[in-house]
Amino acid sequence: MRATQFHIGTQKEAPTDAEIASHKLMTRAGMIRKHAGGIYSYLPLGLRVVRKVEKIIREEMDAAGGMEVSMPVIQPAELWQETGRWDKFGPELMRIKDRHNRDFVVQPTSEEVVTDIARNEIHSWRQLPKNFYQIQTKFRDERRPRFGIMRGREFTMKDAYSFDRDEEGAKKSYEGMYAAYTRIFTRMGLAFRAVKADTGAIGGSLSHEFQVIADTGEDLLVYNPQSDYAANIELAEAVSLIETRGAASEPLAKTPTPGAARCEDVAALLKIDLTRTVKSLVLATEPEKEGQPAQIWLLLIRGDHELNEIKAGKVEGLNKGFRFATEAEIVEHFGTLPGYLGPIGTAKPVKLVVDRTVANMSDFVAGANEADFHHTGVNWGRDLPEPTVIADLRNVVVGDPSPDGKGTLAIQRGIEVGHVFFLGAGYSTSMKATFLDQTGKPAPLQMGCYGIGVTRVMGAAIEQNHDGRGIIWPRALAPFEVVICGVGWGKSELVRDAATKLYEELKAKGVDVILDDRDERPGVMFAEWELIGVPVRVTIGDRGLKDGLIEVQGRRDDGAEKVPAAEALDKALAKLESM
Amino acid sequence: MRATQFHIGTQKEAPTDAEIASHKLMTRAGMIRKHAGGIYSYLPLGLRVVRKVEKIIREEMDAAGGMEVSMPVIQPAELWQETGRWDKFGPELMRIKDRHNRDFVVQPTSEEVVTDIARNEIHSWRQLPKNFYQIQTKFRDERRPRFGIMRGREFTMKDAYSFDRDEEGAKKSYEGMYAAYTRIFTRMGLAFRAVKADTGAIGGSLSHEFQVIADTGEDLLVYNPQSDYAANIELAEAVSLIETRGAASEPLAKTPTPGAARCEDVAALLKIDLTRTVKSLVLATEPEKEGQPAQIWLLLIRGDHELNEIKAGKVEGLNKGFRFATEAEIVEHFGTLPGYLGPIGTAKPVKLVVDRTVANMSDFVAGANEADFHHTGVNWGRDLPEPTVIADLRNVVVGDPSPDGKGTLAIQRGIEVGHVFFLGAGYSTSMKATFLDQTGKPAPLQMGCYGIGVTRVMGAAIEQNHDGRGIIWPRALAPFEVVICGVGWGKSELVRDAATKLYEELKAKGVDVILDDRDERPGVMFAEWELIGVPVRVTIGDRGLKDGLIEVQGRRDDGAEKVPAAEALDKALAKLESM
Repeated sequence: MRATQFHIGTQKEAPTDAEIASHKLMTRAGMIRKHAGGIYSYLPLGLRVVRKVEKIIREEMDAAGGMEVSMPVIQPAELWQETGRWDKFGPELMRIKDRHNRDFVVQPTSEEVVTDIARNEIHSWRQLPKNFYQIQTKFRDERRPRFGIMRGREFTMKDAYSFDRDEEGAKKSYEGMYAAYTRIFTRMGLAFRAVKADTGAIGGSLSHEFQVIADTGEDLLVYNPQSDYAANIELAEAVSLIETRGAASEPLAKTPTPGAARCEDVAALLKIDLTRTVKSLVLATEPEKEGQPAQIWLLLIRGDHELNEIKAGKVEGLNKGFRFATEAEIVEHFGTLPGYLGPIGTAKPVKLVVDRTVANMSDFVAGANEADFHHTGVNWGRDLPEPTVIADLRNVVVGDPSPDGKGTLAIQRGIEVGHVFFLGAGYSTSMKATFLDQTGKPAPLQMGCYGIGVTRVMGAAIEQNHDGRGIIWPRALAPFEVVICGVGWGKSELVRDAATKLYEELKAKGVDVILDDRDERPGVMFAEWELIGVPVRVTIGDRGLKDGLIEVQGRRDDGAEKVPAAEALDKALAKLESM
Repeated sequence: MRATQFHIGTQKEAPTDAEIASHKLMTRAGMIRKHAGGIYSYLPLGLRVVRKVEKIIREEMDAAGGMEVSMPVIQPAELWQETGRWDKFGPELMRIKDRHNRDFVVQPTSEEVVTDIARNEIHSWRQLPKNFYQIQTKFRDERRPRFGIMRGREFTMKDAYSFDRDEEGAKKSYEGMYAAYTRIFTRMGLAFRAVKADTGAIGGSLSHEFQVIADTGEDLLVYNPQSDYAANIELAEAVSLIETRGAASEPLAKTPTPGAARCEDVAALLKIDLTRTVKSLVLATEPEKEGQPAQIWLLLIRGDHELNEIKAGKVEGLNKGFRFATEAEIVEHFGTLPGYLGPIGTAKPVKLVVDRTVANMSDFVAGANEADFHHTGVNWGRDLPEPTVIADLRNVVVGDPSPDGKGTLAIQRGIEVGHVFFLGAGYSTSMKATFLDQTGKPAPLQMGCYGIGVTRVMGAAIEQNHDGRGIIWPRALAPFEVVICGVGWGKSELVRDAATKLYEELKAKGVDVILDDRDERPGVMFAEWELIGVPVRVTIGDRGLKDGLIEVQGRRDDGAEKVPAAEALDKALAKLESM
């Protein structure tokens, strides 16, 4: 490609609404243009990256036995009503009406349509397993689209769906996709981590997220540097930090703690470690019968820990939905306001759920259910009954023992770019997608679903790989692998000849190369290509050529290397290999 | 690809709503599945064809200097309001609202968005010309979707847009796209014809349709076998069939024609040729001021001809929209009901528009504006004034002189698969998409737009190429180029070895081959692959192998050719070359 025949539309200013590097850099590099909140066009330079992402995904999906299909963007509501997601899905589901007033959705994902295909196409166990995938436009009507294409409304997603005869087969399909995803993100040249994750709204019982490591990521990834344990913080298991409970050594005392409403304040006031305090959190669940009062729950975690709401939502009784209690409910049940709540002497009975660590604490401090007072020297079994409901309620923190017993946990930030789900028979049962098994009896298809945010991968790659000058593309995703800058193009035939020769040589080697023949000033060219993030730049100018030299510079290098013109090809190829 | 690892979902029955061959065959071959009216999924076999169509288009668009972009499927209404198409477009434009109650459209085409891109990206004449294209999902909310994917609601379209400094440049871009389209459909192996066409709702002043020739096509293509003249019947110029008007030789007479309301009846009754009669058609245009009566128009065409409404719509005064007159309007202006209308003695004055041929007729027959009476021996200048408004009002018929003066015209049926438009500065003016020209002054971008119905090409290819047994794909579009049927797969190692060897050899030659290793009965296999339309079938069975023979059959052949096993590869390749 020659730059004069291509569209390069870099710009100096980042959009005013851009909060993160990828949004700023993609806009400045002329890769995307915004038309409305969360709705973008991909310009030629940006689309080249999208196509490279898609190609890697397609090749690995095909190699893993996936079959590409294409499902409609506009899908009939009837299918979504069959699974109940028409009602369950929030306003992110774009619901629309056609000219005959019939309901449709703009696909955010395609479980319903693919299950509709499966129930029509798959009749016998002999046809299984099957894996259908598509790379298609998706839409989620985000309330507040932001971060450019990272949380846009319209985006491209690869979604795959596996169908198996039994759970064992489905697990195998799941593992196959897990392996394919590992190959995909490895080939893309991205630092990533697969972590166990919560299944959320998609449902099912097993899931992993594929996270691109980046300091700007919204997700917290918990991992064990000494083993292969890794999980999203939503799911990462927090073990008890106290192996055996110590004996009670202090008397229970109601101690004045005026103005100390937070655990940190209490610890400072009493001159004790924060790890000796206990935090009280009050939740409410709606009653089964209307008109009855809400059930109030008291959750206890150690003062230095944070509540993990996903984990709380898995406690029996809280697993059908909960909310935080209102101030009125708290006053009614505890006789005081938040800040001084505790398990001893509540005004009305509440359901107690105790974190694993708290259950093993002794001589601890908790609110006394009276303003400006805390209980010190609290001990289970003596001052209050032994806890009956003990659960993992807290977020893991750095240094926690790994749940696999090998060493301690570390945490890093990541951007979710892929997600694999073991679905089981949920969708197939509600949509009556059955097949005849080996005994001739109908059985529901066992399913899995597997997504990759195609356009999101672009953003994540940039978040992971950029510097003050611009994007640093991994070779596999770069819009061009090499740029040849012809300095003084208009004036020097020598430059034109040398640059064109190297351009043809690189093309012959299968390198995706662009020849900058725009006759721009070197400073402008260099700044543009560094912003765009092409891995290797070759500079050919009259001055260098007089000494028989050509400059080669890797995007991460501090300066250019001058090499004899005859070696420029090999040097550029070697640099590229290392990117 | 091995058939056991692929999804083949042929079915015996065509859908009950299928009216045309492509709809029936694509469904029966397992290429598409319907989810709602005009909304389909593409199954693996169908998508392989789509991808081949896309690849050819992409390669030729790139070769012609096009740059691929991706514009959103969901587009903000504001842009469509700028050009006025938000109001002008009919209910085919799917208008939707997001969660914040903002208006959007599901793109049927992307002139607005691409012009929005152009006005932001193109600032100087130095950046021109540019050609942006995309291959993307489109949606038209057809009132009555039918013919499978041929007139579906959701479909894939390649839409390209060119931007130039001046009309001359834009014409050159237009010609470049015309040439690219010619290469595209030639590479696809389709019999097609480019015809001049009306510009319709897209606007602009020059346009050509690319039509795949097929007897089941909805469009009539007029062409001159002796020259390169070709036009859609909407546009094809009809010259006068009478070079010089003959002298009047009959007296004007009011002749009884009881019950003869159609020209055919009058001609039969009077025992004259139908070419001596004239047909009266009454149109109405709305008045400029409200409350005033509509203007009534009388159009005269020869009795054996048909009115062309597109042409009528180009007559001064009718070019802002017209309708057929109501019966009340006709009675008011002519004093009688349709069937006996004519230009002589109307009850009220009407505007007269005369077809070119009629203007040169003499001694003709027309209605007498009295029930059961016609005028015979009507002559211009004697019985009524010389016609002042003479226009081309009729459809061309087979045998008409060609407007280029070379021989006569023929007509065939076609399916529109591509359309190129010279747009000029309409969109760029309304959206203020200007650039600085060589004198430093702002000028509007000169545009062209160019569409190919990607999924429609599939249907058209089938309409053109099928027989009683199924589809006959041109090699370039076939889901697989060659199928190897292993007969008795499960039982014979000999068969498995020979088939696998040939399979690997064909793959090594770059042939897209599928190995049918399903252990099906030969009759079932053959019927399936003939339905699917794979160009070349190789059959390998125990019986043949014992004599060292393998069968090779082209999809259009009546029977298979038995060749020595060692020659099977060359024979299959030769067959393929000829498809």
